[in-house]
Amino acid sequence: MSIVLYHHPHSRAANVVWMLEEVGVPYELEYTDLYAGSQKTPEFLAMNPMGKLPLLKDGELLITEGAAIGLYLADRYAAGRLAPALDDPARGTYFRWALFAPSVVEPAAMSKMSNWDYKPSNAGWGDFESMLRSLEAAVTPGPYLLGDRFSMADVILGGTLGYMLEFKMIEARPAFTEYVGRLTAREASQRAEAKNAAVGQEHGVG
Amino acid sequence: MSIVLYHHPHSRAANVVWMLEEVGVPYELEYTDLYAGSQKTPEFLAMNPMGKLPLLKDGELLITEGAAIGLYLADRYAAGRLAPALDDPARGTYFRWALFAPSVVEPAAMSKMSNWDYKPSNAGWGDFESMLRSLEAAVTPGPYLLGDRFSMADVILGGTLGYMLEFKMIEARPAFTEYVGRLTAREASQRAEAKNAAVGQEHGVG
Repeated sequence: MSIVLYHHPHSRAANVVWMLEEVGVPYELEYTDLYAGSQKTPEFLAMNPMGKLPLLKDGELLITEGAAIGLYLADRYAAGRLAPALDDPARGTYFRWALFAPSVVEPAAMSKMSNWDYKPSNAGWGDFESMLRSLEAAVTPGPYLLGDRFSMADVILGGTLGYMLEFKMIEARPAFTEYVGRLTAREASQRAEAKNAAVGQEHGVG
Repeated sequence: MSIVLYHHPHSRAANVVWMLEEVGVPYELEYTDLYAGSQKTPEFLAMNPMGKLPLLKDGELLITEGAAIGLYLADRYAAGRLAPALDDPARGTYFRWALFAPSVVEPAAMSKMSNWDYKPSNAGWGDFESMLRSLEAAVTPGPYLLGDRFSMADVILGGTLGYMLEFKMIEARPAFTEYVGRLTAREASQRAEAKNAAVGQEHGVG
């Protein structure tokens, strides 16, 4: 088996399990004990100097950054199904919202939660209210970011949004909860949730 | 002409000019007067609720987020030349470093510069020192992120790194300055710099 996901259920790697389940390729989970510092060993740092999860190994290839892993898996193993074709203009919208999750939603929410003082025009992620407004426009009318077509961009943005709703980092606007509800109802999402939960139980971090 | 970049030379749109020059498609620059708030008008917000640049219009399609614009342009207009083919494993490395720029380098540098207090394990962008170490590993030995192959990932990450070196947001390690030097020597980069400067002069914001 050539795809290995370095994984811990309490990390951004949990959402990559959902990505892999949507793509439908065989993979293995390599438990990485974050609480014991397994992500800071010399062996791990040689693969990802950030000392963080997720890290995906596909043969000789190493990839980090959850959104990058999703974009890679969709293009490589589900082109035309989870990613628009290269000559499809929808690819622009696809990249737009896939990138929005880690580069705007995450830092804007963390800035807000931490009460950080900054000039929104200097930050790539602008301000929290504009981020919420953009997100609401993106998931409305739906059902997906590309209209009727579900794609990996939904797994990336929806995974981030679901996490933020769960931890009350952003307000539960109906457009958000309905969108995330549609996504978590998917069989692949439920299989991923069960796998993450099973790993947590097995290692006593459930 | 169907591609229009909403542009101001003192914004992240400046790097998109370089992307367009590398791709080699015809395009127009639409000057957006940031100091007069042109990015906050109802017309602009209907296109990008973030009220920010860059914004690229390609026919009916609207895209925001500089890295997303670069990935879109490379796949749509320079596939196999500026972006690895869909079945090429190098696509994983390509996405990894393209995403690293807006989701790790930018927030890590801004967190450091602003002395923000946070737990690196909670932030997608981790800590500043690990970011520098990762960046150094990515551009070494070079000459490009994909070895001998120049790609749009270099324009995305290199543009961010060049900006950060210019404004002394990150230290000028030799690996960084040599990498950025190789990139700014490119004809497309120099054409972009001249265009950005000309727009600045024309509008008295040079």
